Amino acid sequence: MVLGEKPLKNALKDSESKLRTGITKVEPNKLITRGYSQEDLISKLSYSEMVYLLLKGEIPSKKVAKMFNHVLVSFCDHGVTPPSTQTARLVASSGSPLNVALSGGLLSFGKNHAGAIEKSMELFQSSIENSEDIEDNEINKIASFIVENSLNNKKKIPGFGHRYHNEDPRRTAILKLAFKEELIGTHIKLALAIENLLMEKKNVKMNIDGANAAILSDMGFAPQDGTGIFIIGRLPGLIAHINEEVNEEAEFRKFCDIDDIFYHGNKNRILD
Amino acid sequence: MVLGEKPLKNALKDSESKLRTGITKVEPNKLITRGYSQEDLISKLSYSEMVYLLLKGEIPSKKVAKMFNHVLVSFCDHGVTPPSTQTARLVASSGSPLNVALSGGLLSFGKNHAGAIEKSMELFQSSIENSEDIEDNEINKIASFIVENSLNNKKKIPGFGHRYHNEDPRRTAILKLAFKEELIGTHIKLALAIENLLMEKKNVKMNIDGANAAILSDMGFAPQDGTGIFIIGRLPGLIAHINEEVNEEAEFRKFCDIDDIFYHGNKNRILD
Amino acid sequence: MVLGEKPLKNALKDSESKLRTGITKVEPNKLITRGYSQEDLISKLSYSEMVYLLLKGEIPSKKVAKMFNHVLVSFCDHGVTPPSTQTARLVASSGSPLNVALSGGLLSFGKNHAGAIEKSMELFQSSIENSEDIEDNEINKIASFIVENSLNNKKKIPGFGHRYHNEDPRRTAILKLAFKEELIGTHIKLALAIENLLMEKKNVKMNIDGANAAILSDMGFAPQDGTGIFIIGRLPGLIAHINEEVNEEAEFRKFCDIDDIFYHGNKNRILD
Amino acid sequence: MVLGEKPLKNALKDSESKLRTGITKVEPNKLITRGYSQEDLISKLSYSEMVYLLLKGEIPSKKVAKMFNHVLVSFCDHGVTPPSTQTARLVASSGSPLNVALSGGLLSFGKNHAGAIEKSMELFQSSIENSEDIEDNEINKIASFIVENSLNNKKKIPGFGHRYHNEDPRRTAILKLAFKEELIGTHIKLALAIENLLMEKKNVKMNIDGANAAILSDMGFAPQDGTGIFIIGRLPGLIAHINEEVNEEAEFRKFCDIDDIFYHGNKNRILD
Repeated sequence: MVLGEKPLKNALKDSESKLRTGITKVEPNKLITRGYSQEDLISKLSYSEMVYLLLKGEIPSKKVAKMFNHVLVSFCDHGVTPPSTQTARLVASSGSPLNVALSGGLLSFGKNHAGAIEKSMELFQSSIENSEDIEDNEINKIASFIVENSLNNKKKIPGFGHRYHNEDPRRTAILKLAFKEELIGTHIKLALAIENLLMEKKNVKMNIDGANAAILSDMGFAPQDGTGIFIIGRLPGLIAHINEEVNEEAEFRKFCDIDDIFYHGNKNRILD
Repeated sequence: MVLGEKPLKNALKDSESKLRTGITKVEPNKLITRGYSQEDLISKLSYSEMVYLLLKGEIPSKKVAKMFNHVLVSFCDHGVTPPSTQTARLVASSGSPLNVALSGGLLSFGKNHAGAIEKSMELFQSSIENSEDIEDNEINKIASFIVENSLNNKKKIPGFGHRYHNEDPRRTAILKLAFKEELIGTHIKLALAIENLLMEKKNVKMNIDGANAAILSDMGFAPQDGTGIFIIGRLPGLIAHINEEVNEEAEFRKFCDIDDIFYHGNKNRILD
Repeated sequence: MVLGEKPLKNALKDSESKLRTGITKVEPNKLITRGYSQEDLISKLSYSEMVYLLLKGEIPSKKVAKMFNHVLVSFCDHGVTPPSTQTARLVASSGSPLNVALSGGLLSFGKNHAGAIEKSMELFQSSIENSEDIEDNEINKIASFIVENSLNNKKKIPGFGHRYHNEDPRRTAILKLAFKEELIGTHIKLALAIENLLMEKKNVKMNIDGANAAILSDMGFAPQDGTGIFIIGRLPGLIAHINEEVNEEAEFRKFCDIDDIFYHGNKNRILD
Repeated sequence: MVLGEKPLKNALKDSESKLRTGITKVEPNKLITRGYSQEDLISKLSYSEMVYLLLKGEIPSKKVAKMFNHVLVSFCDHGVTPPSTQTARLVASSGSPLNVALSGGLLSFGKNHAGAIEKSMELFQSSIENSEDIEDNEINKIASFIVENSLNNKKKIPGFGHRYHNEDPRRTAILKLAFKEELIGTHIKLALAIENLLMEKKNVKMNIDGANAAILSDMGFAPQDGTGIFIIGRLPGLIAHINEEVNEEAEFRKFCDIDDIFYHGNKNRILD
């Protein structure tokens, strides 16, 4: 240990040799999660309320629960196109069990893949310091600044534009629901203002990541929660793909074969 | 390729160079999952209905959807005691991102950990050939046979007994709900008959895995779906633990340290 | 805990709250591995001797060390064709760091992929009960039995035949070296006898997995060590592929795109 | 695609539908790696030379090969104390196969765990712009600057200090070998100069990561290669630990149990 750093606690144990947690209290014949008995939670909560409770420590209002449910559903599946789905199927095809194939899929949620929602939440949340007390024209100014900045630097704004969809159908559905539930907070306002400007200048719309980033920001989730919520929503789709792979395709498939490969390296070196 | 085996299809492509899927159709501005437009699914389905649709290809009845929701919630969390939770926290503590820590947690769902529900479903489903047409006394006979067999071979019956709980509180809650919803099929009857006998002879009750294995079997899920549904239910809990680890504990924790280790190997060999 | 099972030790700790290991003794300023000081090992062992020491607990003879080194090198790389390589590159392309992409590659070593060497070792070792005391004509009889059995059941013999190579060039090189080092034990004899018969009847040769399975069996490695040794040998190649992916290719690549996908599921279902 | 970004290549295929690689050319009965036939490589290279060839594209001189071999051996094992080892054993204990337990171990090489060697290489390489043409007193000045900076900011210098060892025995062995082989380049000189100053002021020595970071930098490896080389060196040790876990310990172990856990969350909330 050098140079004045405070000593790390080097074990998962605290001073009394205990691991600490505030999530679930396990006692014989008794399970308390976030303060509630699991019997009660099992009987009374919807799965999306349970997710919310686990992540935020509180049960959401019925209105927020409904919206949060829509968000989870909206992440469900995007076919075989995402690399995570391809990885999960490739690992399953090698004969590894379900949990392992799923695990492989999750490893593909690297910064180029699942990062958009988190980056979008960071952008929205860092742009609005005090969301209680901000007026609409102030939001428009922030949107202007973000879009100008993006155009000048030729950088994409995370959460806007989609490689396949001009208008991501999930974006449209989820925004409609947010209006219906009257859950339009400052972050959604900001996202819509950015979209307005991008449409004018580039014909580019918000995508599902941007819409959900705004909704989740209005619900008070931190940016890093975005990735977790995305993964929860996508997991059942990954399982469906793994099942499809195992049940309907030949084992040990490859995405490419010997003829698909171009070798551009050295060819004729001699070892003495 | 030898010995008369039929040639493997060696690529994920079929004869027309296409990857095949029946889960989601992706077209510009249009996403169809299991035949329904995602706009509709986002607006109208609960998250547990969506999971059911992805895994089974059909939307469940309201009654089944309600019960399936209870099952998902019942898997939510069991504190820091399961190895998967410890693995996820350990990986998170090393500084790896959320998706990677989650992935580590999933890798710990090996056959000794998350296997009980699948094995329990296999047992129930293989014991009852035709669940449409079976009488209660026949079910009791099967239960007798299973329990005798287990006692004679001194082998646990998967889904019964719990290392911490004499009466797993989740089992009690979920069975009560199954009765309330009048969803008592042959597999639950079999599980209850086994429990009766085990209580008599060994004072051992069904656990949550056994109860959910029976419920899911009655819903028509295959054994291998059990693990997937368990993982979906447990994932949000794992995320909560990873967040807790990252937010509240020192980095680079260990579950043991140099003083906790007993070395029993060779000590003084000399290399010439 | 039910039904007379002996209680599991539920912690990594033994009765004195210690984790046990016989691999490395860690003391302040002193590291003893398999009985030798690490200073000595670092100065005097080749890396393949070190691998052997870690796995078997003993330093090999110079002759065996040489052969074991050849085996490790022979696993080095097979281009982009193996699914593990494709998985590692796919995960790397998503923006995950090196250790994560490597981890993804390892997950693809499922039973359909890296299993051949282990299955081949199982076959060789289970066919020869006492390798000290067996005559060549007895080995030939065993080979005959294995080949007849395979032909009758139309099942491949693990370690023979290759999807790309009629004659796997690595097999030829490694067998030549085994002869040169005069390390032809009963398991290699058995493998050669099987190959003779398969050549006669099916024009099928041993592959590198079969050759290495025989060599490692003669060295006294257990079947389950085969997979580990294969992974050690292949790891540097996987790293080279990940580096190539990161340094020379665009981010977020996919092995297929929207046009490569054929959707065969439901198309027009209506949700009410 | 928005805002003027150049379109990503969205497939692993290039314009001619080929995957590209410069590592291994696969043809029927022929394998060329880095320009050499694999038959030749198998017969003539030591495993550490093969690793070097795969990573750098060139075969090292005998002197460098020898030193690189020492470096690989020096990473071999550090007992049960590193989190990666604990993770690998925990996953193995859950009943997952070897490749999966190894994969779990690799996931624990997060930035807090395996990052030191890479950060150390970055520091050394970014501090010396032109290593051909630098004089010893210039190196001493750079060392001074680095140490002053560290003391002022109370930040550790990566590669110096060890949590268990005052003098890491591997550091001492590996430096001695570098002197013996007369492979003392500018990066080792810099590391030694930093150590001199830290010893004077803080009684802190270089550790094995710092020593290897300097040696590998002098060999021309990039910082990101450091992690890969570390993982190659550590992998056999992880396998030894997984084997030990599977062969000598009870299944489904945990690093903590119910009594080791302190719950500090809510206890008595009521759900209506």
